[in-house]
Amino acid sequence: MRAVDVIRKKRDAAELSREEIEFLVRGATTGSIPDYQIAAFLMSVVWRGLSHEELAVLTEAMLRSGEVLDFSALRGSKIDKHSTGGVGDKTSPVIAAVVAAAAVDLPLGRKRVYVPMISGRGLAHSGGTLDKLESIPGFNVNLPLAEFRGVLERCGCALIGQTPEIAPADKKLYALRDVTATVESPYLICASIMSKKLAEGIDALVLDVKTGEGAFMKSEADADHLARLMVETGTRMGKRVVALITAMDQPLGRKVGNALEIDECLDVLHGGGPPDLRELSIELAAWMFVLGGRTADLAEGRALAAELIASGRARDTFREVIRAQGGDPAVVDDPGRLPRAQHWAKVKAVRAGFVTAIRCEQVGLASMMLGGGREKKEDAIDPGVGLVIERKVGEAVEAGATLCTVHYNSDARLAEVTDLLSRSFTLGDVAPESAPLVRKILGAD
Amino acid sequence: MRAVDVIRKKRDAAELSREEIEFLVRGATTGSIPDYQIAAFLMSVVWRGLSHEELAVLTEAMLRSGEVLDFSALRGSKIDKHSTGGVGDKTSPVIAAVVAAAAVDLPLGRKRVYVPMISGRGLAHSGGTLDKLESIPGFNVNLPLAEFRGVLERCGCALIGQTPEIAPADKKLYALRDVTATVESPYLICASIMSKKLAEGIDALVLDVKTGEGAFMKSEADADHLARLMVETGTRMGKRVVALITAMDQPLGRKVGNALEIDECLDVLHGGGPPDLRELSIELAAWMFVLGGRTADLAEGRALAAELIASGRARDTFREVIRAQGGDPAVVDDPGRLPRAQHWAKVKAVRAGFVTAIRCEQVGLASMMLGGGREKKEDAIDPGVGLVIERKVGEAVEAGATLCTVHYNSDARLAEVTDLLSRSFTLGDVAPESAPLVRKILGAD
Repeated sequence: MRAVDVIRKKRDAAELSREEIEFLVRGATTGSIPDYQIAAFLMSVVWRGLSHEELAVLTEAMLRSGEVLDFSALRGSKIDKHSTGGVGDKTSPVIAAVVAAAAVDLPLGRKRVYVPMISGRGLAHSGGTLDKLESIPGFNVNLPLAEFRGVLERCGCALIGQTPEIAPADKKLYALRDVTATVESPYLICASIMSKKLAEGIDALVLDVKTGEGAFMKSEADADHLARLMVETGTRMGKRVVALITAMDQPLGRKVGNALEIDECLDVLHGGGPPDLRELSIELAAWMFVLGGRTADLAEGRALAAELIASGRARDTFREVIRAQGGDPAVVDDPGRLPRAQHWAKVKAVRAGFVTAIRCEQVGLASMMLGGGREKKEDAIDPGVGLVIERKVGEAVEAGATLCTVHYNSDARLAEVTDLLSRSFTLGDVAPESAPLVRKILGAD
Repeated sequence: MRAVDVIRKKRDAAELSREEIEFLVRGATTGSIPDYQIAAFLMSVVWRGLSHEELAVLTEAMLRSGEVLDFSALRGSKIDKHSTGGVGDKTSPVIAAVVAAAAVDLPLGRKRVYVPMISGRGLAHSGGTLDKLESIPGFNVNLPLAEFRGVLERCGCALIGQTPEIAPADKKLYALRDVTATVESPYLICASIMSKKLAEGIDALVLDVKTGEGAFMKSEADADHLARLMVETGTRMGKRVVALITAMDQPLGRKVGNALEIDECLDVLHGGGPPDLRELSIELAAWMFVLGGRTADLAEGRALAAELIASGRARDTFREVIRAQGGDPAVVDDPGRLPRAQHWAKVKAVRAGFVTAIRCEQVGLASMMLGGGREKKEDAIDPGVGLVIERKVGEAVEAGATLCTVHYNSDARLAEVTDLLSRSFTLGDVAPESAPLVRKILGAD
């Protein structure tokens, strides 16, 4: 078999066989096929797409390029959640704690749900769960797989980063996609996400597919397409997958930045926090309960999630996970122990009115420019910096009142950041209609 | 400027600027942009195509990546011919000799035409002028540019291969295209051909764009598209370009194989040879006379070409070129000095009737399998082997009569070759209508 012939087939929109796809993935992983051929193949996939069958085979080949975790010895369901990324999107720590906390008082016939969560770093304007967790002093996201398993067993959830053992083909392909303008293909995004997630040894997956100005899939049609590909691919691989298409047209919650976002997660786990973050966390957790057989239906799942927050059990679980992963558990009850930026500045409203829109991607970029994200891969993260959105869409504001507080350490780019933020808020005379957070649910039948 | 951003622009079908195209070509040539980015770019061009302006800029950037020959010191026009490749397509040596022979007895106001011809090797089923010329004992196609100039000045034509100085960007890009299934893009074919040809320092170019089963552009629509791109690109670069779209639905002439094809060129230069080869050679030479200002019109060009053959002047010129390039000039009058295969076999008609079609690409592949072409780049050419088509399309044949003679040295693949050839001929009860050799002329206005 020759790589050039497989590329030509895809270029000409023909269906690739399992053998051809496995040949390419193996060649990419071992280096026996040179990068320039893989790059040409990736661009031909951006162009021609993949059939459901090709996509499932590609995902499976990437999954099998490394170790597939096996948690079958743990009695219960293993369920994860994945978000396609947004701004202020911080549900993962909340959800992991809530779902893991449902381990006790199991009604007859119901299953315990474990959450083996392997997350990513921030990318462009979007934050990353790992960067957020690392703002907790001592928290180690780089556990070896044996320790990951131990924490999962003891706490019911564990949160780590990508390991070299998991889907090495994805690591290789992603690095190439990043420099060849082939990141955005929904087919390649699907294979990347699903190969890593299904390598976690999970039984089912809840997807939070973001749509709107702050998402990677700006249009709902694109988000819908990606969600359908992921549900279909998971199903073909024998897993139950539900995808929620959710709004990312303004930051989720009020806080953007790593320690600031952990702080807001703690607000929710303490029973407070912004309604949208709380609602989405409960909704996603409820779906995990349903898919995992922990509750009979979604309503029961929602009630259970709310109860685990209200009772403090989810908060207690989070404290235990932090301790188990080497972090300072005292941050849970004393968020002042989280790193804080030294200075703050205010972005003020130039007129009175209602916030009618917040340019979400710009808000994410502003946080990145402060040091909350990486402009280049090798950049260090400043965990304390970020933004607090003081007025969200639909809220009234007086002229001169604060729209947004900037938490910063260096004022090198402060003027640029405040200017960007100022331009990110649109004010009008009439409050806009409120739109639902969850736009659509796929794979629920 | 970042390569990934330029790739993304082309991927999204946006128009690239001159700076962006020059950046990519320079990066490809110097190696400062890695092959995987160039490969992704090439596939995005296969997908999205190029505008006339982008294509002219790309061609110019590739042209300027190396030396551009300057023959302005030679008084007269410098004109070349290029064929997109076919089977038995051997007009180049004939045309070079005919056009160069028109150097004397110039009427007032008419110009001498020089032919600085840089040709290629065989590719897949198609033959290459260089391989054919090298079947002449001693003929050196690897002259340094200074010697090339010397032969051109003395003989009026010179025939060499690609040199490292000419369009190195094309060499680099072609090598990548070959292994990334990006050869077939008409835009990339145009840029490749035109950058090399216009680096010859010519004033005008006659293109023989082949169409039909034995051509790279099988459909006339594809051939027409490529021809238009080349005419447009040449025009934008200030050169007169005429493209003839000609039939390649059966081999040109009767002989296929390197020494066999030189033998057939000599037949034409001696005043004989197959009518189609003679006709096309005269037609292309006539266009070169017209573009070069040697004759007032095409009819006069045709008459001049025919007269130069009839008088033996073209043959004498070819003898001088062979001598000047180190070859054995005695082959011209004694073609028996050309290498010959040791054995021959016959492919016979299984029934009586008329030849209604010859699968031209298969005939080319058969010649390659005998050793007349390269299956892998490093293969050596056997100059003596090849085929003689004894019955062309429209000719009558008795059952058991010879359709084709196979000239071979090794019988290792003989059965395979004769079987392939046998299946290449279609016989029927009725002679097909004869179709014109020249299908269309572009750029003639």
